[in-house]
Amino acid sequence: MAPASRIEPVIAERVTEIARALYPDRPPELRFHSQCHLSSGHFAGEDDIRARAFLEIANDPEIDALWFARGGYGSGRIAERVLPALTAAARGKTYLGYSDAGALLAGLYKQGVGGVVHGPMPADVNRAGGEAAVKRALAFLVDRAPETLEPTVASTVPSAAFNITVLSHLMGTSLQPDLTGHVLMLEDVSEYMYRIDRELLHITSVPAMRRVAGIRLGRCSAIPPNEPAFGQTEVEVVQHWCLRSGIPYLGRADIGHDIDNKIVPFGRWSPT
Amino acid sequence: MAPASRIEPVIAERVTEIARALYPDRPPELRFHSQCHLSSGHFAGEDDIRARAFLEIANDPEIDALWFARGGYGSGRIAERVLPALTAAARGKTYLGYSDAGALLAGLYKQGVGGVVHGPMPADVNRAGGEAAVKRALAFLVDRAPETLEPTVASTVPSAAFNITVLSHLMGTSLQPDLTGHVLMLEDVSEYMYRIDRELLHITSVPAMRRVAGIRLGRCSAIPPNEPAFGQTEVEVVQHWCLRSGIPYLGRADIGHDIDNKIVPFGRWSPT
Repeated sequence: MAPASRIEPVIAERVTEIARALYPDRPPELRFHSQCHLSSGHFAGEDDIRARAFLEIANDPEIDALWFARGGYGSGRIAERVLPALTAAARGKTYLGYSDAGALLAGLYKQGVGGVVHGPMPADVNRAGGEAAVKRALAFLVDRAPETLEPTVASTVPSAAFNITVLSHLMGTSLQPDLTGHVLMLEDVSEYMYRIDRELLHITSVPAMRRVAGIRLGRCSAIPPNEPAFGQTEVEVVQHWCLRSGIPYLGRADIGHDIDNKIVPFGRWSPT
Repeated sequence: MAPASRIEPVIAERVTEIARALYPDRPPELRFHSQCHLSSGHFAGEDDIRARAFLEIANDPEIDALWFARGGYGSGRIAERVLPALTAAARGKTYLGYSDAGALLAGLYKQGVGGVVHGPMPADVNRAGGEAAVKRALAFLVDRAPETLEPTVASTVPSAAFNITVLSHLMGTSLQPDLTGHVLMLEDVSEYMYRIDRELLHITSVPAMRRVAGIRLGRCSAIPPNEPAFGQTEVEVVQHWCLRSGIPYLGRADIGHDIDNKIVPFGRWSPT
């Protein structure tokens, strides 16, 4: 289902073809909820409709995974409606997505859902070379293939991954995740450097966020030119706020709004 | 002093001339700290230099008011440095500004400083007709002139005013103001409607913010076109989130990034 922006039907067709080609002998059954293609202003249907589609899938015990179709903006709008309505079937399921979907990933993880995962979505097929991202997501969903994982994901230390802007907008709300002891991987796209700085100042100023094990910086892509020049790269900005807040900076993470976006299961990694 | 972006020296000259013309018999003594004109990338000097300028003025018992020179981005970066270093002289002073300066207004108000005020800044003189905004600020600073006040400001109910984006970035931090029982006035500039929606979702989702007496919406100006059309005006967006969060929507406020920006003293209004 699409918790935020809509996808064109052709995306569903292409992703289904990729899945069939990848697993000719055992093709996974992909069902694209019709809600994915609705349109209501900015959103793939009104909040109520997106919330209902989410719950239909999440609470269906015959479905193994809920794969968010696309980001944009809108997941946070339905979080307060869907999270209290999850049943036992929802807790045994995998949830895969990133970017705006992080608002729901955060809420699901906070509720103790085990299979919360940051990684590519069907809409990534629209990127040049986007098949690679979709194949990676499928290889994770179908086989938990270890080569799909962000290389520093570990069974010994819990991880979590978020879009910087989306995480900033969860601070202080019931969706703010408890990431004590977690390696927090962060990425962003199309934000001015002064905004990246402002979001990171925000996130690292929240007392509970200072309890993360450390921050790894994914890619910040398509940064519009700052006027005047900001004078610091995104790595320098993250290092600055880590230093000021006492959070260890752990280096780069192989995630971002691109086809190389690797898989980050929330929590400690376990293939089963 | 300039807590965020720099101002050109000509702004200081023009504002000083306006003050002399407005009060020919008793011109207020305006001192523009030399820090206002420094430049360090995005900022009017490095964080340490801006923090020092702030404290020099705030802690000087011979100065009546600290008038923030301009917004931009950077006030939040120095808040953790300056707020713990305030002395008794700082508590008896008026602090006037808006937009990015809201991060410091929030922190000052939280510390119990009485004279925290949302209103025009020297840099507003650069707007067409900006003299009117500067004169309004001066009439408040010099005479507490009641006609400068936002019309709904009252002695019976406490008020506070913020830029929507700036307030969103304080949520969950030590700068998040306690606005229980306050009329909260909000304004913004140059933000996409989906971002205004996201900030308001954020602010109204924070449990403590749901204890405000109500929200009044100032002007949201220079909103870039949303793609696709968002389908709601800023008034509808605020009404939506007020309804969802149980916060009373109280109507419009006469504030914004423009020359008509009226004065909003934080707390209950008292002319002395």
